[in-house]
Amino acid sequence: MNANPKFIAASAQVDEAAIQPLPRSRKVYVEGSRPDLRVPMREISQSDTPASFGAERNPPAYVYDTSGPYTDPAARIDIRSGLPPLRDRWIEERGDTERLDGPTSRYGLERLADPKLAELRFDLKRLPRRARAGARVTQMHYARRGLVTPEMEYVAIRENGRRREYLEELRAAGPTGARMAELMGRQHPGQSFGASIPREVTPGFVRDEVARGRAIIPANVNHPEIEPMAIGRNFLVKINANIGNSALGSSIAEEVDKMTWAIRWGGDTVMDLSTGKHIHETREWIIRNSPVPIGTVPIYQALEKVDGRAEELTWEIFRDTLVEQAEQGVDYFTIHAGVRLPFIPMTANRMTGIVSRGGSIMAKWCLSHHKESFLYERFEDICEIMAAYDVSFSLGDGLRPGSIYDANDEAQLAELRTLGELTTTAWKHDCQVMIEGPGHVPMQLIKENMDLELEQCHEAPFYTLGPLTTDIAPGYDHITSGIGAAQIGWYGTAMLCYVTPKEHLGLPDKDDVKDGIITYKIAAHAADLAKGHPGAQIRDNALSKARFEFRWEDQFNLGLDPDKAKQFHDETLPQEGAKLAHFCSMCGPHFCSMKITQDVREFAAKHGVSDEEALARGMEVKAVEFVKKGGELYSKA
Amino acid sequence: MNANPKFIAASAQVDEAAIQPLPRSRKVYVEGSRPDLRVPMREISQSDTPASFGAERNPPAYVYDTSGPYTDPAARIDIRSGLPPLRDRWIEERGDTERLDGPTSRYGLERLADPKLAELRFDLKRLPRRARAGARVTQMHYARRGLVTPEMEYVAIRENGRRREYLEELRAAGPTGARMAELMGRQHPGQSFGASIPREVTPGFVRDEVARGRAIIPANVNHPEIEPMAIGRNFLVKINANIGNSALGSSIAEEVDKMTWAIRWGGDTVMDLSTGKHIHETREWIIRNSPVPIGTVPIYQALEKVDGRAEELTWEIFRDTLVEQAEQGVDYFTIHAGVRLPFIPMTANRMTGIVSRGGSIMAKWCLSHHKESFLYERFEDICEIMAAYDVSFSLGDGLRPGSIYDANDEAQLAELRTLGELTTTAWKHDCQVMIEGPGHVPMQLIKENMDLELEQCHEAPFYTLGPLTTDIAPGYDHITSGIGAAQIGWYGTAMLCYVTPKEHLGLPDKDDVKDGIITYKIAAHAADLAKGHPGAQIRDNALSKARFEFRWEDQFNLGLDPDKAKQFHDETLPQEGAKLAHFCSMCGPHFCSMKITQDVREFAAKHGVSDEEALARGMEVKAVEFVKKGGELYSKA
Repeated sequence: MNANPKFIAASAQVDEAAIQPLPRSRKVYVEGSRPDLRVPMREISQSDTPASFGAERNPPAYVYDTSGPYTDPAARIDIRSGLPPLRDRWIEERGDTERLDGPTSRYGLERLADPKLAELRFDLKRLPRRARAGARVTQMHYARRGLVTPEMEYVAIRENGRRREYLEELRAAGPTGARMAELMGRQHPGQSFGASIPREVTPGFVRDEVARGRAIIPANVNHPEIEPMAIGRNFLVKINANIGNSALGSSIAEEVDKMTWAIRWGGDTVMDLSTGKHIHETREWIIRNSPVPIGTVPIYQALEKVDGRAEELTWEIFRDTLVEQAEQGVDYFTIHAGVRLPFIPMTANRMTGIVSRGGSIMAKWCLSHHKESFLYERFEDICEIMAAYDVSFSLGDGLRPGSIYDANDEAQLAELRTLGELTTTAWKHDCQVMIEGPGHVPMQLIKENMDLELEQCHEAPFYTLGPLTTDIAPGYDHITSGIGAAQIGWYGTAMLCYVTPKEHLGLPDKDDVKDGIITYKIAAHAADLAKGHPGAQIRDNALSKARFEFRWEDQFNLGLDPDKAKQFHDETLPQEGAKLAHFCSMCGPHFCSMKITQDVREFAAKHGVSDEEALARGMEVKAVEFVKKGGELYSKA
Repeated sequence: MNANPKFIAASAQVDEAAIQPLPRSRKVYVEGSRPDLRVPMREISQSDTPASFGAERNPPAYVYDTSGPYTDPAARIDIRSGLPPLRDRWIEERGDTERLDGPTSRYGLERLADPKLAELRFDLKRLPRRARAGARVTQMHYARRGLVTPEMEYVAIRENGRRREYLEELRAAGPTGARMAELMGRQHPGQSFGASIPREVTPGFVRDEVARGRAIIPANVNHPEIEPMAIGRNFLVKINANIGNSALGSSIAEEVDKMTWAIRWGGDTVMDLSTGKHIHETREWIIRNSPVPIGTVPIYQALEKVDGRAEELTWEIFRDTLVEQAEQGVDYFTIHAGVRLPFIPMTANRMTGIVSRGGSIMAKWCLSHHKESFLYERFEDICEIMAAYDVSFSLGDGLRPGSIYDANDEAQLAELRTLGELTTTAWKHDCQVMIEGPGHVPMQLIKENMDLELEQCHEAPFYTLGPLTTDIAPGYDHITSGIGAAQIGWYGTAMLCYVTPKEHLGLPDKDDVKDGIITYKIAAHAADLAKGHPGAQIRDNALSKARFEFRWEDQFNLGLDPDKAKQFHDETLPQEGAKLAHFCSMCGPHFCSMKITQDVREFAAKHGVSDEEALARGMEVKAVEFVKKGGELYSKA
């Protein structure tokens, strides 16, 4: 760990391991209504079903792909150049922004002028954009005017995936395919707690959800590199990965690396929570290379600017930080404007006080000055900045509980009500808003959080950290929180902020990032299934079918982490042949429940299962024959 | 991996790493109504609160301890001798069992007579016990006759822990202690879905729950080494760890090692699912060294006896296997008597057929013979054997779903109804019963499983595998299932069968066992919290208080895995001094929300928080002073 890392921009390179396609996966693009609207998906090819199981063709499966151009062998990746500005023309065409001559923040200008930073700096040739005077350039603004933007169409295509085409392909293949399509497509009815997910997402639906404030598309006009995505409870549940260095560790290169790693495994957005040196430069590198929306907590950087003395923070410093970051392209800001002066004493009797960094900074400021928070008092000024770049609000829960003891207390709920008021204000300015949620909450209190959020924050998307369902497992808080995340996702939370195994103990490294991501992909997908998201079960069905048919490689590849699945399998049965074997290491070759099941299936297929009488008769007749044949209807492949 | 391991009984040794006490932990014994009734608990000592946080004394915390004598430095551990027969006198005193001359099973006699096995054999000098003719020696039998056995009293003491004494100690310490006791003892109201957990568990309560069939105490008269425990939804949620070799790997020594490892981390029972060679000898070694109840699936061994040909299984072979294992001391048997002939065709249209090994063996047998299952037809005979040794039933869910697609289907629910019938039959014989449950179930269908089980199986304890809430994460099924386990535990499942990361892929090694255990301890504890188990939150409170006060070592030690927590912390801040530091690596020394919170607390404490007006006045007056002092009320330790 290097507290003062050497980072040379000119030699910055991407980690080769992070830019290989996943096994047997290929990036495909679905074109929208215009040729520059191409939505990436990951196609996972499948082997045919072995003859002994019926010799079906298994068409490739398609999954939502957050990894950006990195996993496309056709893309030229050079992190010194950044990603192509996919949305540039869309933004330009709207004609409501203008190019500035350069950064307009005081701090942005200072950093640009500092020759000592040349080595660290990303060499961006493009100038920042801002709304023309009086214009609002938010997706909500367009949606409310009835416009379907390319971003909205992109989201619609992306949310649908290719599930309809996939099932049609299957059905067209003949009677076996039709049965497979039925198996693949059928799923249990969900329980959605008021969410209402259409069978097919249309661009108009996306527009309506954004207009209503029930979904956001974080998409700063200065981050044209993103592949647009939506956060809202009528869409797939999303996950966020936090990265960022602290004063004690990690370099710029490491953080860019963590970002590409996080999106490879499924991070839908990434928050850069750096608090160390070179926050500004680190952020620029991350944004320029990120195909997913980037969030930040601007108060962290504002605090650095006053050398960590919260009481010296001013609106002017904070405002300059917002502009600085908005012009770099941050897509959403966590703003802790709900930490109001009268709420602060409510935390005094807590077990763990104020655990949000942003919340504690503002609490300290309020106490020092005995004044209402400038974030609260200047909230409309903040809205104007957000609307001029389309930075979405993530209204921070600065008073979230840091322990089970403090869950759902007066301070937390007072802040939540305030976030509801602020949402109304932000919406007046056409700003996109999501609401941050806790924290540490035991299972029986989780639903109350969701219900109150929907009611008091007018159905703005909820974005929760976990929640952690117990405090007693440091080192495993990805799991304590994954349990709560799956539940609150089911109840309606739109985005789940991951927690890594290092939570409470240290800074996550790449392994921790991956563990956090996979855990949260599980939670999000379990929530999609439980809500009854159309087609969510197709992937489960495909994987289980592969498992049943001993298509080992397909089972690995359809999983969230093919590498680990293969590694685990190979620890016991490393030979290549074992991956074609009709058994596995758990039970050995002569004792396999899946194999025995095949006998049942074949038998039932021959003699019918719907007519019980016929079956009973058939079984009586055939029982002798079955034993004669040795009770083994299947020959080994 | 060695398919034909060399295991020399004479040189068998316990792994030294598994018999050290956990950090700053000491085993204490709480004596019951007789001197030979001593219930172990783990005492975790705590440091005092540093002066800067109020200089309180933190009394040691007590937690439920499954690790047996292994973590007691006063105990002499020699796995060749096994553990002391704790319950021998209790069983003897009841006067309803007799010592046999030796094993009465044909197979047990054969193995004993085989000189080739001498090297592998555990040298047990004690003879097996069995009920005297006509006697029933089950805990249920005693309970129904109104008797409180030492086992029941043991369970009562164990379930209470020392929480009352702990809080009293705190309260007696003065006003600060009283406030701490209030913090430590207070918890959120639970939501128990019909469970009814008393504030203090009495021996009479345990008896009544066992008599009612709502709890079991698995305690074979031939396993006097166990420390009794209860499984029931009005007690703490328990977890089971599966171990066992297959034809492909692992030796006897490894399995004993896994058992001691599993209980070190919190396994309440262990199932030996071995299917390879030397099942009989492996089991003996495990039982003789296990302080927790051991479960098995006798049909696995019966199948070995007919060389894997399910159709050759007979009642006589199965019966002999039951007697063989009962005389070794197995505490509960999974019996798949609910896999009835007419249900088998119901699985034909499943995605993954029959995934239970036991279920598929019985399905194959039924199909081959076109006969009703001999387990079902001979169920009363089985009950008689169970009652003669007090082996508890774990009625197996042989038709559990192996994929999300198959969840809660006709086959599964038909079997569950049958398990309800069988429960009634078993209870007629005073046999203790628990019911096994799925499997793969999406979140929205989990509660239905619990509700149907309670209704149809008359509130017999539910014992579920997971359930796994999605199929798409091979390599992470401890997590997909931990999510479901926490939920179903909350709804009322009494014991959660762990799933390791290797599920579906290979046999768990020691790391996997630990990951599975810790994940399931999290799920069980999260469920206890959610149900409102009295005092469950004390450990969360103690840990969070340690966290807030930067008592790093205490935070580690109160956690489920002190070793990993310390290791993670030390990766970033390895110096010994860092563990006294009032900051951590996430935010660095000058930026710590917990530290800032201290200012809030001190301020509020000085000026009162209950009277808002007084507070407002006080804050106005003091704001200037606060800034003067530099806004840092706390000096660093």
